[in-house]
Parts: sequence; C-alpha cells; structure tokens
Amino acid sequence: MTEEKLVYLFEEGNAQMKELLGGKGANLAEMTRIGLPVPPGFTISTGACRTFFEEDKAIPQSLQEEWAAALKTLEGALGKEFGSPENPLLVSVRSGAVHSMPGMMDTILNLGLNDKTLEGLAASSGNRAFALDCYRRFIQMFSDVVLHIDHFYFEEALTAQKMEAGVQQDPDLSEADLEKLITAYKGIVKNHTRKGFPQEPLEQLELAVKAVFDSWDNQRARVYRRLNRIPDHLGTAVNVQAMVFGNMGEDSGTGVAFTRNPSTGEKKIYGEFLINAQGEDVVAGIRTPLPIERMGEKMPGVHKEFLDVCALLEKHYRDMQDIEFTVEKGKLFLLQTRTGKRTTAAAVKAAVDMESEGLIDREEAVMRVDASQIDQLLHSQIDPGAKLKVIATGLPASPGAASGKIVFDADKAEEMAETGEKVLLVRTETTPDDIHGIVAAQGVLTTRGGMTSHAAVVARGMGKPCVCGCEAVEIDGALGIMEVEGLTLKEGELLSIDGSTGRVIRGQVPLIPPRLSSEFQHFLSWADEYRDMGVRANADTPEDAAKAREFGAQGIGLCRTEHMFMAQERLPVVQEMILAGDKKERDRALARLLPMQQQDFKEIFRAMASLPVTIRLLDPPLHEFLPNLEKLVIERTRLKCSGAPEKEIYEKDKLIKQIRSLSEANPMLGHRGCRLGILFPEIYEMQVDAIFHAVAELQDEGIQVTPEIMIPLVGTSRELEILRQMVEERALAISREQGREFHYLVGTMIELPRACVTAGSIAAHADFFSFGTNDLTQTTFGYSRDDAESKFLHHYINSKIIPENPFAVLDREGVGDLVKTGVDRGRREKPGLKMGICGEHGGDPSSIDFCQQVGLNYVSCSPFRVPVARLAAAQAALRMKKAGKG
Amino acid sequence: MTEEKLVYLFEEGNAQMKELLGGKGANLAEMTRIGLPVPPGFTISTGACRTFFEEDKAIPQSLQEEWAAALKTLEGALGKEFGSPENPLLVSVRSGAVHSMPGMMDTILNLGLNDKTLEGLAASSGNRAFALDCYRRFIQMFSDVVLHIDHFYFEEALTAQKMEAGVQQDPDLSEADLEKLITAYKGIVKNHTRKGFPQEPLEQLELAVKAVFDSWDNQRARVYRRLNRIPDHLGTAVNVQAMVFGNMGEDSGTGVAFTRNPSTGEKKIYGEFLINAQGEDVVAGIRTPLPIERMGEKMPGVHKEFLDVCALLEKHYRDMQDIEFTVEKGKLFLLQTRTGKRTTAAAVKAAVDMESEGLIDREEAVMRVDASQIDQLLHSQIDPGAKLKVIATGLPASPGAASGKIVFDADKAEEMAETGEKVLLVRTETTPDDIHGIVAAQGVLTTRGGMTSHAAVVARGMGKPCVCGCEAVEIDGALGIMEVEGLTLKEGELLSIDGSTGRVIRGQVPLIPPRLSSEFQHFLSWADEYRDMGVRANADTPEDAAKAREFGAQGIGLCRTEHMFMAQERLPVVQEMILAGDKKERDRALARLLPMQQQDFKEIFRAMASLPVTIRLLDPPLHEFLPNLEKLVIERTRLKCSGAPEKEIYEKDKLIKQIRSLSEANPMLGHRGCRLGILFPEIYEMQVDAIFHAVAELQDEGIQVTPEIMIPLVGTSRELEILRQMVEERALAISREQGREFHYLVGTMIELPRACVTAGSIAAHADFFSFGTNDLTQTTFGYSRDDAESKFLHHYINSKIIPENPFAVLDREGVGDLVKTGVDRGRREKPGLKMGICGEHGGDPSSIDFCQQVGLNYVSCSPFRVPVARLAAAQAALRMKKAGKG
Repeated sequence: MTEEKLVYLFEEGNAQMKELLGGKGANLAEMTRIGLPVPPGFTISTGACRTFFEEDKAIPQSLQEEWAAALKTLEGALGKEFGSPENPLLVSVRSGAVHSMPGMMDTILNLGLNDKTLEGLAASSGNRAFALDCYRRFIQMFSDVVLHIDHFYFEEALTAQKMEAGVQQDPDLSEADLEKLITAYKGIVKNHTRKGFPQEPLEQLELAVKAVFDSWDNQRARVYRRLNRIPDHLGTAVNVQAMVFGNMGEDSGTGVAFTRNPSTGEKKIYGEFLINAQGEDVVAGIRTPLPIERMGEKMPGVHKEFLDVCALLEKHYRDMQDIEFTVEKGKLFLLQTRTGKRTTAAAVKAAVDMESEGLIDREEAVMRVDASQIDQLLHSQIDPGAKLKVIATGLPASPGAASGKIVFDADKAEEMAETGEKVLLVRTETTPDDIHGIVAAQGVLTTRGGMTSHAAVVARGMGKPCVCGCEAVEIDGALGIMEVEGLTLKEGELLSIDGSTGRVIRGQVPLIPPRLSSEFQHFLSWADEYRDMGVRANADTPEDAAKAREFGAQGIGLCRTEHMFMAQERLPVVQEMILAGDKKERDRALARLLPMQQQDFKEIFRAMASLPVTIRLLDPPLHEFLPNLEKLVIERTRLKCSGAPEKEIYEKDKLIKQIRSLSEANPMLGHRGCRLGILFPEIYEMQVDAIFHAVAELQDEGIQVTPEIMIPLVGTSRELEILRQMVEERALAISREQGREFHYLVGTMIELPRACVTAGSIAAHADFFSFGTNDLTQTTFGYSRDDAESKFLHHYINSKIIPENPFAVLDREGVGDLVKTGVDRGRREKPGLKMGICGEHGGDPSSIDFCQQVGLNYVSCSPFRVPVARLAAAQAALRMKKAGKG
Repeated sequence: MTEEKLVYLFEEGNAQMKELLGGKGANLAEMTRIGLPVPPGFTISTGACRTFFEEDKAIPQSLQEEWAAALKTLEGALGKEFGSPENPLLVSVRSGAVHSMPGMMDTILNLGLNDKTLEGLAASSGNRAFALDCYRRFIQMFSDVVLHIDHFYFEEALTAQKMEAGVQQDPDLSEADLEKLITAYKGIVKNHTRKGFPQEPLEQLELAVKAVFDSWDNQRARVYRRLNRIPDHLGTAVNVQAMVFGNMGEDSGTGVAFTRNPSTGEKKIYGEFLINAQGEDVVAGIRTPLPIERMGEKMPGVHKEFLDVCALLEKHYRDMQDIEFTVEKGKLFLLQTRTGKRTTAAAVKAAVDMESEGLIDREEAVMRVDASQIDQLLHSQIDPGAKLKVIATGLPASPGAASGKIVFDADKAEEMAETGEKVLLVRTETTPDDIHGIVAAQGVLTTRGGMTSHAAVVARGMGKPCVCGCEAVEIDGALGIMEVEGLTLKEGELLSIDGSTGRVIRGQVPLIPPRLSSEFQHFLSWADEYRDMGVRANADTPEDAAKAREFGAQGIGLCRTEHMFMAQERLPVVQEMILAGDKKERDRALARLLPMQQQDFKEIFRAMASLPVTIRLLDPPLHEFLPNLEKLVIERTRLKCSGAPEKEIYEKDKLIKQIRSLSEANPMLGHRGCRLGILFPEIYEMQVDAIFHAVAELQDEGIQVTPEIMIPLVGTSRELEILRQMVEERALAISREQGREFHYLVGTMIELPRACVTAGSIAAHADFFSFGTNDLTQTTFGYSRDDAESKFLHHYINSKIIPENPFAVLDREGVGDLVKTGVDRGRREKPGLKMGICGEHGGDPSSIDFCQQVGLNYVSCSPFRVPVARLAAAQAALRMKKAGKG
C-alpha cells in the first residue's frame, strides 16, 4: 500500500530521526554512527506502525520483505544465520516510541531460538546450560508479552523445578533441570494456546513485532499518552538487534548507568551492574546488583572503557545520559542511551554545572528544567521509595505532603499543636471559624468542596498541603471517627496527605524536606535575565507578601480584600455592616472596619517596601459573609418545636428574611464585584480611604507607595468610569485634608467575556488591565468551577472532551481567544497599556507561555508558584526569541 | 462666542431643518414656504440652546441682537411695533425640540403686553375687554411657567373675582372685573417675587426664552429623554410668532385636528374647536369644544378652507397630520402641524389606506408602523382613558391586562373558574403544581421571582397576562388576604394587572379587547414580502404550536422539552429517573417517560404539519425537578423534634442527601445542557428515540417531518460530535428496526462565549446554529438574570450604566460582538450554515435588526411576538436595502 521505506539499518539512521525511528532506534543509530560498540540491528519505523493500524492490523508484505533483507545484512555481518541449527542469529525485539512510554511492550530477548537453534547456540557457545537458560527465558518472555499467558504459570513451574532439584537460585539448575523446565513451559503454552510454542523464527519475529505495535494501543499506554499529552497517531518503532550475552560467565555481565546522579545532579557516574546476567535480571531484583564503581575491581579494562564512553556520550548529546550496556566475554556493548530522567533538584544542579563546564550555554541551561516541576522544591514531598497505604484520593488542592494525628475540630487542633503534636485537620469543609485550626495543622483534608473552596484557598495561601473534596471519606464528628470504604480511623490516629496528587495515606509517611539550594537561586537569577514579563504574587496578608518577596516576586498583582473581612474578630462587624437597616447604620459599621483595613494595607505595603501592590476592592457577594441559611432554618424549626418564646422565633425569622433577601440563585453571576461598589459606594469608599490613609502613614515612615487600585468584575466601561471617579475624589479629598501628594493607578480586572470584547472602551478609563482568568474561564465555558469539578469536569477530561482542566491550564482556543481580543482592543485604544494576569493560570507554565505570546507585561500567582513563574516566563521568552518573534 | 446664525425667520427655513429649528419650527417654516396662512415669526435655533448651556445659562449677546433684528422684520411686515403703546406687536413663545417632548415648557401667549401696550391693543382691536382678558391670561401664564408661581394662586383670585362679580364663566367678567383681577394678579407676582410684573417686553421675551431653555433640563424632560433614548445634548429651539386671536368674538376661534382618526385610522378629519377662545381654553376643558364637523355650520367658508389645508398637508407630508389652528375674525391661521400620534391599530389602518390611496408606496407603509407596539393588538389593553388605582408595580412578565377576583390557590381558582367567575391567581410564586390554576385564571400575580420565573414563563407561553416579583405585596394564604402598603385585600375582591407595564390595580378596569383586523393580516403579508429572515416560534405544546401558526410562524425554532417533564403526573416519574440508584433503575423510569415524550412530539409535529420543528434536548439541571431542599430539611427537623420513628427520619435523610448531592452553587453554570447528555446518555437517547418514533407514526399518517434536533449548551466541538453520533446511531437503529427512512438535522445552541469563539470547530459537526442569547447574555455579562433583575440591574439601567435591559434588547457592543464572531467563524468553516436566534431577543425589533445585519437566517420568538418579528424583520431588511447593503 505504501511505498515508503519501513526498515532502517542502524548505520542508516541518526539522532535526528526520532520521529521515524523512535527515541531508542535513533540513538542506537547515532551511537553506531559515531563508532561506539553497538550490536548490529535495524529499526522498523513508526510509519510501519501507522500503516499497521490503517490496514486493520495486518503486517504489510513490503515490511516483511524489508526486514527479511535487513536480517540478511545482519547475517552477513555476523556470520550467523537466523534460524540456523548450526550457528543461529538471535535477536532482541524492543519497542521504541518517539517519547519514552511506560505501559508498552518492552523487550523480548533471545528471539530466534527453537528446539533446533538451541542446539546451534549450545554448540557455538560451547555452553549447553547457557543455551538452555536462554531458551527457557525466551519461552517465558515471549509467552508473557506476545501470547499473553500470565507469567505466574511460568514462575510456578520454575519454583516447582527448583524445589524438585533442591536448589535456591536459577543459575544452579542443571542442564537436565532446564530441559525438564523447557518441557513444562511448552506444556503451559500448549495448554493456553491449544498450539505448540512457535518454532519458526520468522513467525516469532512477526508475532513479536505485532505485539509491539498492539501495545501502542493498550489501555495503559493510552492513559499515559493522555496524561502526557502525546498524540495518539504517532505510533511506535520496533528495534531488532543481534543478541549479545551477559550471561556467558564471569567475564560477562549487564548493567545500567546515569552519567550523573539523577537524584541530586552530582557529576558522578551512577548505576549498577550484574555479573553473568541478562538484562531482565537487573530489573527483576532476584540478585542484588553491584554499584557501578565495583566494576573497576571486577573488570578494570571494561570499566575504563565504559567511563570513556559515558564521557563521550554526555559530551555528544550535551546532556545527562541513561545508558544500558552488556559485557559479553570481556567486550563492552551499548544497548541504549537516552536523556536521563532526573529529579527537579538534579535537573537544576546539572543545568548549572553543565553551564559552568561549558557543555551548554546559559539559555540552554534555563530551558533544561521543567518549570511545572520546580515548585516541588518548595514543598515537602513523600519519599518516592516509600510504600504507601493510599486509602482514598481527593482533589490536589494545595501542594506538598504532610503527616499528623487526625483532629476533627479547629480548637482541638490548636490545643494539640500547642503541646508540640503534629496534627492533620480533617473536616467536611472549613469556614472562617476554622482558620486557627488550619494555622495549627500540618495540612488539611476536607470531604467536600473543590479547588476554590475555603480550605483550598486558605491552605494555598499559607503554603500548607491540602486535599479537598475527598468524598470517599465520611466524618462522624460526634463519635470522633472517620470512615473510608469500611475502614474506621479514630481521632489521634496518624494520617498523611499528598496535596500534590490528592492522595490520602494511612499512617505516617517519610517526607523529603524542601530544598532551596544556592544553585536554585543562582539558576532562577539566570531565568530572570531572559524574561520579559514581570512576576508578581497574589498575596492577601503581610506574611504572604514577605513569602512572595523571598521567592522573588516583583510586587503584588492581586491583594484580595475579602479574606481580611473573614477574620474571626471582624466578621461580626462585617455582618453588622451588611445587615444594616440604613446607610447610617452601615456607615457606623464601616467606620469600625476602616482602621482595621488601614492596618492591613499598611502592613502589606511595608512588607513590599516600594514594590507595586495591586489591591482589589471587595469582590464576593455579601451573603458569603452571613451565617448559613439552612442552619438558621433548622434552628428556627427547633425553636418552634420546643415552644421557645415568640420573640426568639421572631428574631430568627427576621435574620432569615434578611439573609434570604440577599441570597442568590447563582451568586457567581450575582451582586458582586464592582456591582457592590456601584450600589453601596460607601463600602468601596471605606476601602479606598483605608488605602490612602495607609499610604499617608507610610510616607511618614519614608516609604513611598504607589498603590494600584483594582476594580473587580467590570463589564461595562461606565462602571469603571464611575468608580475611578470615586477613587479620584477620595484621593483628592484626603490629599487636601493632609496636605500630601499621592501617586496611584486605577485599573480593572478583565474577567468577563464582555470586558474582553469591549476592552477598547474600558481601556479609556484604565491605567492597567489584570486578566482574571479564573472567572473568565467560568463565564466563557459557562462552568461554575465548584459545580463542574464535582459533577462533570473529571469525566470531560478523562474522555478527552476537553484536553485538560481549563482552571489549571488556560484554554487557548476559547478563553485565550477572548484574552487576545481584550489585549488587542485595549492596546488599540491605549497603546502600551500595562496588562497582567492574576488568575491561577499566572502560575502555570503553559499559560505563562500564552501570556508571553499575547504580550502581557506581567503574571501574578500564589507566592509558592513565583519561582515556577520566573522560570516559565524566561522559557517562554526564549522560545519566542527562538521562533524569531522576540 | 459663536459665529453661527442663531435666529431664523419662518421664511428662511423648511421641513428638512428639524435638527436646527426643532420639529415645530421646521414645520412652521415649511407651511410658510408652501404658502399656507401662518402668522409670521422666527425660530431661535437649538444651537442657541446648546450655547446657552455651554455658557452657564447666559443669553449670548449675538442672540439678543439677532432676535431684535427678527422682531424688526415682523414689525415691518405687520405694521405693528413690539412694546408700542399704540399698535403693539404681541407674540407667542413656544418650545420646539427636535423630538416632541412632554414635560418641557410649552407655550406663552400674548407676550409683549404691559400696562401701556394693553391700551394699544384695546385701541387697535376696539375691544377693551378682549385686551384686558389677554393681559390677565398673559400674566397668569407667564407667572406660572417663567416665574414659577403656582397657578393655584391665580385660580384662587379668578374664582374670588367671579364670586364678587356674581358670574359663572370667565368671559362674563366685565372690564371693571378684569381690571381688578389684573391688579390682584400683579399683587400675587409682587408677593412671590418681591418685584413687580416685568413690564419691559424685551425683558419678558428674554425671560421666556430662558425658561424654555431651562425646561430642556428639568427632571420630567430628562426622564422622558431617558425613556425614549433621546440624547441629552440636542437642546430645544424656541418659536416666537406674531399672535393671532381666536378670542375676538363669534367669528373667531381655535382648535386642533387630526387628518385621520388617531384611534382607528379611519380617513376622516378628527378634531375639535372652540368659538371665541384662545389656544389654552381647548386644553383646559372649562368649555366643551365642538367636534370639527360642526365648524361647517358655524363658519362654512373657513371650514372648507380648513379641509383643503388638511388634504394639502397630508399630501405634502405624506402622513397623517396633527394640526393646530386659530380663526381670527373669519381668517384661518395655522399654528402647527406635525405627524399625528396614533394607536397601533390606527397606524396599521392608515398605512394600508395610504398605500391604496397612492400616498405612500408599500415599502414605506411597512416602515410606518412601530414593530415594538403591534403585539398590543394581540392582547387586551387597559382603556387609556380609565382612572386607575395603581396599588403596586411588579415586573411586566407577560403582556396584556386582566381583571378578576383574587384567589390564592390553584385549586380554588379552577373551582371558581368552572362556575364562570373570572379570577386572578395571586401567589408568592408558582410551581408546576399550579398549572391548572394558571390555565383557569385571567392572569397571574406573584410576589417573588423574575422574568424567567415559572409563572412568567408559563404565562407568556399561554399568552396570559402576568406580573411577577411584586415585592410590595405580602400574601397571607392562611388568612386569605394580601397586604399592600397598609391596604388589605381579601380573597374574592376584584383586582387587575397590566402585564405590559407591571401595574397592579385595585378593582376592575375597562379593557380594550385585542383587534386582529383584516387590514392587520394584510399589512403583515406585505411585511412578509420584504423580509429575508424566517420567523419561527418558541413553542413547547401543541396549543402553542397552533397559536404560532395562527400568527404566521414558519416553524418552531425552539421546542423546550423540560416543561414536558414538569407536568404534574410526570414529575414523580422524572424524579424516580433522577434519583435512580443505578442505570437499570434509571432505564426503567425512562422507559415510562418514552411514550409520554413520543406523544408530546407527535402532537407538536402534527400541529405544525410539515413545517420545521427544532427540538432542544433536556437542558435544565436535574435538581430543578426535585423537591425543595429547605422544605425537606424543615420537615426532617420537625420529625426529629416530634419523636417520629427512626425509619421515617432515615428515609427523609436519604432523600435530603440525594438532593444535596445534586444541588449546585451556581446551577446556571452547572451540570445542565449537553453536559447531562454526555454523563447520562440514556436520558438523551430516550428523547431521541421518542422523536423518531413520533416521526415514524406521523409517516403512517402521511405527514413527513424533518425534525431538527438541537443540543443545548455546547461549549466544545467534541460535545456536539459525541451527541451527534448518538443521534445518528439511534436514528439508524430505529430506521433499520422499522424499515423506514428518516430525514433530520442535528444542530446546536450557541449560547456560551466559548461556543462563539470556537464556532468554527463546532460548525464542523452542526447542520444549524441557534443563538441562545438569553444564556449568552448571562455569561457574557456575568449576570444571573434572576439575581441581576432583583438586585442591581434596575439601578444600572436607571443610572445609564447600561442603556437598556440586555435581556430585552440585545447588547450589540458585547453580546452582539460575540454573536457576530460566532456567525463569521461558523460560516467560514461551513459557508451557508443555517443560523437563527431563539433567545427572547428573537421577538425584539432592535435585536431583530441586529440579526438581519449579521446575516442570520431566521428568528424565533414566543407565539405572541411572531407578528412583531414578522414586521421587524421586514423593516430590518428594508433598512438594510436602503443603506445599500441589501
């Protein structure tokens, strides 16, 4: 059907041909090309795999012809013959996709063996036990991965044979034992397939290639591709390579090694090897491998050669390599090299080291570290080697891991923490009343609520691990227990959570503390050299502000003022303000709030010294500050039932009525944001007064502050015009009163589709735009985040209806299109208008890349994401430069 | 300050100069130009008014100079002199804005009179009583409108004088009486202004002109402009005209007339006149004017001349005229002509008649009727002459007026209606359980809920008047009373509502029944000739469908299926379906719903014969069909308090838990629309099956139906792709089962911003788009309609933050921009893709005009708006043609 070349000898390829030959094939070709000792072989291209799927899983005739020709070349080079009973050529068959992918069929060794070639191998190696061992390994492996017979049956037979022979280790089996074992294995195959074990080497090869192709489409591989955004249509290549044997005695062996330490990045070969073994023995863990240093004692010549090869490969590829090798009778063969996977800490160290070694330049060093991973370095992590009893999974609401004693109550949490206990706060959901408990706890687990629930927002702000909405957990606070799928845990028992993955784990887990190495700081300073966009933080408290500066934030891009209203001692005053019967009563309550707000702002300004601070005026609907309506209704019903005095019921009714009149069908789309400021100007006036009074006090301390006052949820230019005028009037009044001069900016959130399309007229009244992509995502998609995440979004992502959670990664096609419209129209009206982003996307590398592309001036994100954003912004700028747009 | 000409003699202007001269001035100039008898005069331009406001309300020097010159011209023409004690020139001063505007200062007659010119007038007229009468009228009028002295004081003095003289009528006052009265009037002026009555004619003129300018900016005028969307900066002109006197005896008189009957449109002069009277006497109603026909008896020559003038003016202006005239000693003078205001019925008849008279062509006839008014003709209206006791105002939720006995309960309403009583259903809010009561009632009044509440939606569907969310009314169902601001009304008392304005009126009101004249049908058929866009109806029941066809709908553009689920006998099955523990249980409930849905669709298809029917699959979140959570919680608390059996409480708890798990923070943005169809495919499958089974049954009846299946709330192309595939699979299965062929379309609502911006990829899977501008307005603005209308929207509209309610009139700048994007991107992918609108905007003329401009193929609206839409679509097409884009 297709005329394209489907099979490439290793000598025909090179490292650039990954798309066609897969990663493994391209690197085997490259190593061959630069003269390293690679056993000869060939690669069946990814194109062949695509053809296979297009043609209903049939191996095309042309492919069979091409691999037959390639086998001939191998036979000629090695003087062996595939299927020869005298001097048989044996091959390994390995998958090799463009991107390394677990879950696919991996490796078959010793292919080409059968009852006859076995004898040839025995003769040519002069070692019949070795040949038998190869054959039984081959049957076992082939049956498992090609014929899909559970390897349990073969293990069982092997164990039985060892018992019969009275030996402990596989290599101790005698020739006779191995013969019996092979017979038993063949019986298993016959039993399961109703056919004998395939004896024809070419049939073996065809079945193996098909199995590799098929494994591209298996469940695990598909899931992996979805998670890693690898397109489904790429297909995999297959590598067929002449066998070399590490199991030919004490002068043979096999091993794997990294050219640098993949955990720490230290520049030192790191790996292990096994004498007299084949590849899978290292992985299987039956024998304990030796550290690679010991190779120097066992086979000094090979060791030296290997060290040279490692140095060469690292230099050639200009990156840390992960190498597989085999030694056959004292001769070193390389079976694979690839870029070594590493921890983020190692990635940072290696990048910094390689730059100073001159291996890579600084730009490349900056590109070498995955930005989305580096916040790991700021949070405790669970030791990846630990065995975990995961009992449930919730939403990964705030990253990091924590262990502690279960506590169901905030007061109790505080009490226990004061005695030095580590506690984990477990609640159905949290409210502002629980803040002291969250402060006291190592982390928070809730059974309800999404990524924007109170617990999630507060925990993220504090940098505390949090798992939310873990619905499998049921709490009975009265009994002091929690239940998960039949398991009951009592208060005081140890529990752990991983806020980066959502896992809830029974007992204590070993934690790796965060590392903020000097290399890391150094590395980030390089990133800062390359980025165009500023990086600010979303911070609502002086503590957050300090943390943000520590992580390198260049200002505050979003200081939400509502959390200030939520503080336990303020809530009653806030409620008084909201429930005020008239403006006078409201003004009285506001007058009490003013000095508190003033103090808040003063401390935040001071913490940020003279860096810019963007303060968003009150945003949430007022009923969010009021008591829960349902609870009140229950209380009222109880009072009525218990015959309480009419007056008490009347009071309750009055409150219920007030709250009901404020409650809304869709609060997200209700009376909030600047709509509050328009209808209750006195609230915003109080906030603006507090800002300028705070600025004034700091002037007396010699600190100059230029507050950036941000109006939320603007949908029409007139809203901004009115509120801007109010700000200007208040600023003027206070400046006249106090004989001072104020500098300030007034800008707006762009967080509604209408704000994006009318950005031109809005820009006329704005000193800056800050894209609020959380709300913009909600309105653009018509998704209420809380509802969507608990109801359908998970399914949508799993079924690929949307590629990823649009609240985590900015949806470029939809939301991004509107952002772009907003930027373009805003700048057309006011060229050079300062624009930033302060949604959660401001801390997500892919979204930051988008921000760079549309020309934003800064991103703002939670303090703990600031380093991520610094790096991601640098990488985005470099990518753009590379694409010739910088 | 300004060099522009500010004063124009009547002979210098014409009808085209309205912007400059105002409507009245331009028409006076025009009548002068075509040789009609108009007393000479001049117009002070609107530009002068603008200058006045720009210059802090000072009359510019140049203006005074210009009007002095114009007065000179008048003096020359008439041989009189302004301020002359011998032969004084007297003038009238009248405002005249570009758009006729009630609320502004209107008229001052006899200006120029003072103690000296009085004698001149007495001498020149030879009638001292007449001259005195003119003077006292002038003082009274000038004091009222220029000096702002309440006319009550003058009425009081006049009454006192008549009592003293022992006469009943004003004209019976003797010269001596009038002298005394004038002295008394001057005393009143002195008393209030501490100054004498202005004697200097030029000062009188300046004060009068200032008063006209000032009245442009008064409260009433401003409110009127806001309501009628007249820009504030236009300003008003002032007309100064030589007086002619209708009060000079039995050969004099004054009157007003329409060239056709303004109520019915009948082609017959319609008006009234008074012998021996000045203009204000006709309005004041002290004497009863005569019908214009009687003029033929009283002054046959003048009458004939007047009829000729009427005919001439109508022909000249090519429209019905509203004319003011005065007869001075047998000579006819015209004081004003303007386009006559008319009822909608009259507008239709006049347009049809004028076309057949050859006065206007058909296109112009179609343009002559205000589309937004014609649905008046389909609903009863309150007689505009009736005196009403308006006791409260709510939201105008469904147009038309109704009177009936107050009933607080649906069953009672049905019961009383069966005995022939007319009832009005008054409830806090309605639920599906009240449907039979709504059917039985003349109209519905609710105290809670907005324009999209259950009562509103159901009443609009039935074409029944409804006033919603009338919060001033409190209902005590137990006592059988309602209270409004201290007033208590009992069940059975008469009450009326006006669903077009939201008024609630005590007692019965006289109603004008709807008129669907043959002229109207004829007129609409003309409209149909010109429109490009189809007009469909939103109809959910066979009754609605029939009504829609009656009004000329060309199909159904939106058949909502959720109302079918709400029917009393179905709700329990729907609830069973929703609360099903597993798919099997759900399938069982769905199997019971299938035949009901099938029957629904069959009847609707049959009612529409072979016209297209667009069926929207289930849209609302499932919890809308479930019992109210709060009520359940109260019941549960009561059970607990009263020590009910544990089992009963357990059952309640179970239900509460289920409902809670389905309830959402923001249902508008939650698990609804196609998100239901994706997660619970069995529900949509049932609906699709019901559609095709219904189509099949109608095929047996010989009716061919091509259903248009519409997927709601699509935000990503993949959703539509999946659900389209489902529809295709079901259609294929049923067609194979039954050996039939089906024709159908699958399309989608475009009602999310994301759907608009990604319309290109969505179009790939759509046979049609239907813009759901209700939801699109909600998400684009970030307004929850219910919350916005009850919380802040009213204020926003009143303060001009937004020009009008975006749920009534499509917001072109924001929502419209997104619609345009949707159209353009959709058609770029699929040229010629059929597109319509099915939001409420589909029945609003301004929005329909927009739909024409962006190139939609059809609009769909409620059945009662179909005639509006037919006309508006025609006018939009004609406007576009005229603008050269047609």
